[in-house]
Amino acid sequence: MKAEIITIGDEILIGQIVDTNSAWLGQVLNEEGIEVQRITSISDTRDAIVQSLDELLPSTQLAIYTGGLGPTKDDLTKEVLASYFDSEMVFRADVWEHIKQLFASFGREPVERNKQQAMVPEKCEVLFNHKGTAPGMLFQKGAVKICSLPGVPYEMKALVKHGLLPIVRDSIDFQIRHKTQFVVGVPESVIADRIEPFEHLLPENVKLAYLPKPGLVRLRLTARGDKSEDMAATLEQAAAVLKKALGEDLKDGNDHNIEVYVGEELLRKGLTVGTAESCTGGGIASLLVSVPGSSRYFEGSVVAYAYDVKETLLSVNHEDIVEQGAVSETVVRQMAEGARARLNVDFAVAVSGIAGPEGGTPDKPVGTSWIAVAGPERTVAEQFLFGKVRSRNIQKTIFAALNLLLQEVQDFDPKKVGE
Amino acid sequence: MKAEIITIGDEILIGQIVDTNSAWLGQVLNEEGIEVQRITSISDTRDAIVQSLDELLPSTQLAIYTGGLGPTKDDLTKEVLASYFDSEMVFRADVWEHIKQLFASFGREPVERNKQQAMVPEKCEVLFNHKGTAPGMLFQKGAVKICSLPGVPYEMKALVKHGLLPIVRDSIDFQIRHKTQFVVGVPESVIADRIEPFEHLLPENVKLAYLPKPGLVRLRLTARGDKSEDMAATLEQAAAVLKKALGEDLKDGNDHNIEVYVGEELLRKGLTVGTAESCTGGGIASLLVSVPGSSRYFEGSVVAYAYDVKETLLSVNHEDIVEQGAVSETVVRQMAEGARARLNVDFAVAVSGIAGPEGGTPDKPVGTSWIAVAGPERTVAEQFLFGKVRSRNIQKTIFAALNLLLQEVQDFDPKKVGE
Repeated sequence: MKAEIITIGDEILIGQIVDTNSAWLGQVLNEEGIEVQRITSISDTRDAIVQSLDELLPSTQLAIYTGGLGPTKDDLTKEVLASYFDSEMVFRADVWEHIKQLFASFGREPVERNKQQAMVPEKCEVLFNHKGTAPGMLFQKGAVKICSLPGVPYEMKALVKHGLLPIVRDSIDFQIRHKTQFVVGVPESVIADRIEPFEHLLPENVKLAYLPKPGLVRLRLTARGDKSEDMAATLEQAAAVLKKALGEDLKDGNDHNIEVYVGEELLRKGLTVGTAESCTGGGIASLLVSVPGSSRYFEGSVVAYAYDVKETLLSVNHEDIVEQGAVSETVVRQMAEGARARLNVDFAVAVSGIAGPEGGTPDKPVGTSWIAVAGPERTVAEQFLFGKVRSRNIQKTIFAALNLLLQEVQDFDPKKVGE
Repeated sequence: MKAEIITIGDEILIGQIVDTNSAWLGQVLNEEGIEVQRITSISDTRDAIVQSLDELLPSTQLAIYTGGLGPTKDDLTKEVLASYFDSEMVFRADVWEHIKQLFASFGREPVERNKQQAMVPEKCEVLFNHKGTAPGMLFQKGAVKICSLPGVPYEMKALVKHGLLPIVRDSIDFQIRHKTQFVVGVPESVIADRIEPFEHLLPENVKLAYLPKPGLVRLRLTARGDKSEDMAATLEQAAAVLKKALGEDLKDGNDHNIEVYVGEELLRKGLTVGTAESCTGGGIASLLVSVPGSSRYFEGSVVAYAYDVKETLLSVNHEDIVEQGAVSETVVRQMAEGARARLNVDFAVAVSGIAGPEGGTPDKPVGTSWIAVAGPERTVAEQFLFGKVRSRNIQKTIFAALNLLLQEVQDFDPKKVGE
C-alpha cells in the first residue's frame, strides 16, 4: 500500500515549527508495511488543498492530511474536503455529545464555536477524537482512502493508532523491516569503498542506506516482501555481509543510538560510568543522561574547562598540565583515572580537545582531541584530529568517546576480575 | 518571489530523521522576502525526482533540492537533473582541485570515488562547497532557478548563505526584517493573553510570531516593506509594544539564544560561571560551552547524579540528602554553593529534579525541579513543576536555570562589591 502525508499550515512553510508529525507517521506507517511515497507541507488555502488532492489521487492508495481543523476561521480543511467530495455538511449529534463529554472530563463547558466541530461532511466516516475537539474524517474515493486529522501531535497520534490503522490494516499484505547499525569515526566515502566489493552479496530485496552524522554513520538495511516471508532472517543475512566488509568497525547497536547501546552494555554487565570532559562541556554526560533509566549506570561527571578544576576535582598534576598542555595524553589519562576514583565508577571516559575557533597552535591545531577511558583493568588513550568547525568537533569528540567507551566495556569481562 | 523546497531521501519518508533543513530554509528564504509555497519530501528515485520537477516548474520561480548528492551509489540527484535538463556530465578540473584542497585542509587524501564529485552537468552553474565534497548546482530553465544542494545541514546552510542567496538577492526588491526576543517559563497561551490588549499598537507592517520550545517562547517580530524603508526603527517601535505588555518577563537577548546572551552578560561584567547538575546531566554546561569563546567565562561543572558524588564533589551534607531528599531546596542550595567554592567561580547554577519516567513520588511527582544560583552576594532557589515527558523536563529545566542565572547576573553590580 502506497501513502502520502500532507501537512497543512503556514507555520511549517515559514520555518516556525519543524514538522515532527510526518516523521512519526512515516515510522508508524512503515512498520505496518505502508510505504510513504511523499510528504508535503502546504499552505492552508483552498487552492493549495485542492491542488494537492488533484495531484495525489491518481497515484496513491492512502492520503493522510494533518492540520487545519481548528475552531478558528483560518482553518479551511473540512470545508474544502466536503466541497471536493461533493458532500453536504451535516450536524452530527453523536459527535457533539462526544465533544461535550470531553469538555466535561476537563471540567469545562464548550462554547458555541465548538459546536461547529460537530458539523462534518455527510460522506465521511467520523474517527472519534478522544484527546481533543476536532474529529478525524475518512473519505473513500474509488480505491483511495483520504484521511483528515488534527495537527496537534498527541491527538493525531491517538487517532492514527486507534482510528485509522485498525481500518486500513486489513488491506495490507506487505511488510517492510529495517535493521540499523553504525560505524564511528570512518568517513562515509571510505565505508562505501569497503562495502562495494561485497554489495552483490546482499539479498535482492534488501536496500542499504547511509545516514551520516558528524563522526558517526548509521547504515540502514531495508527488507521488503509479503507478509509470509521471514524478514528477520533476510536482514541477518544482509548484516552478515556488512560485517564481512567492515569487520570490527561495524557496531550492531540493536537498532539503537550509540548512547542507548552503551547503556545496555553497562547495565548487562552491572557496571557504572562517569565522564570527565573539557571541550565537550558535558555533552557526553547529557547524551548518556538523555536515556530513560540511565541513573542505573550513570553516576556523574566533572566538566573541567579551567586548569584549576582539572587539578582540584580530577587530581591532574599541575606540572603535567604546564609541561604537556591540557590537551595531551598524560593529562587526559589522569582526567580519566581521576574521574574514575572521584566519581567512584567502574569506567570513566575523559576528553580534552581544542574545539575552536580559537586556541589552536601549530603543534596542536583546532580539531585535536585526546580521549581516554579508564576501567577496572586498564586505561587506554587515543588521539584524534577532527576539523575546524566547533560544533562538529564537539559532536565528533562525543561519538568517538562513546565508541572508545563501548569498546572497552565490551572487551571487559566482569567475571575475570579477581581471578 | 515564490519558492519550493524539495528534500530527497528515504530517511525522511520512513521517519528515521526529522527534516530540519526545510524549516531552516523556510526561515532564511522568508527573511529574504522569498515566499515558500510548498515543502516536499520525496524518495531518491529517478521517477520521484522527475515527477517533482514536472509538477513544480510551471508554478514556481525558485526550487531548492537538498540531499542525494553523496559519493555513494544510492545518490541519484545529479544524474537525474543532468538528464532532465539535457546536459552532458563533464569533469571540472576546478571542482576537483577544490575537493583536493578541502581534503588537504583536513589532512586527508581523497579516494577515487571522490573524483566522481567533480563530474557535474555542463549546463549548471557550480556553487563551490567549502564545507564538504559535493558541489551545489544551479540550473536555469526559462524564468525558474533550480538549485541542488547536499543534505548535510552545515554544508547546505553555507551554500545557501554564500552561494545561492547572493545570486537570487538581486532579483528581489522587497525586504523582510526580524527581531526576536524571548520569555522563559511563561506558557504560550498566557503570553498571548497578555499581549492581546496591546496588539493593535503594533505597526501595520509588523507581524508577531510565537516560537515555543519546551520552557522558552521566542517572540519574533517581522517587518515587511520595500528596500527603502527603515525597518530597524519599525521593529524597535514594535518591541516597545511587547515590553509594555510583558514587562520584565520579556528578555531582549540581542536576537541571540539565551546561552549566548548569558555569556555576553558574564563577559561584560568580567564574571565566571560553573554548574552543578543532576537531572540535566551536563546539559546546561554543554549549552554554555556550545558558544565559541565560552572558555573566557565558563570554568567547569559537576554532574552529580549519584548521592555520593553530590557529597564528595559538591560538599552536600549527607543527612540533608537523606532527610530532605536530593530534590529539595536545601540540597540544591548546597549544590550551588558547593560548586561555586569547588569550581572557584563567581556564579554557580545548580539543578536537581525528577525528569522521569520513573522516580516520582506523591510529594515530588515527575517534573519537579529545584534550581539554585549562588553568586557573590546571595544564593537564590526556586521550585518548578514541569510535565511528564523526560526530554521536555530536561529542556525546561535547562532554560529555567539559564534564566535564573541571567537574572542574578543582571542584578549583580560588580562595582558595589566590597563597598
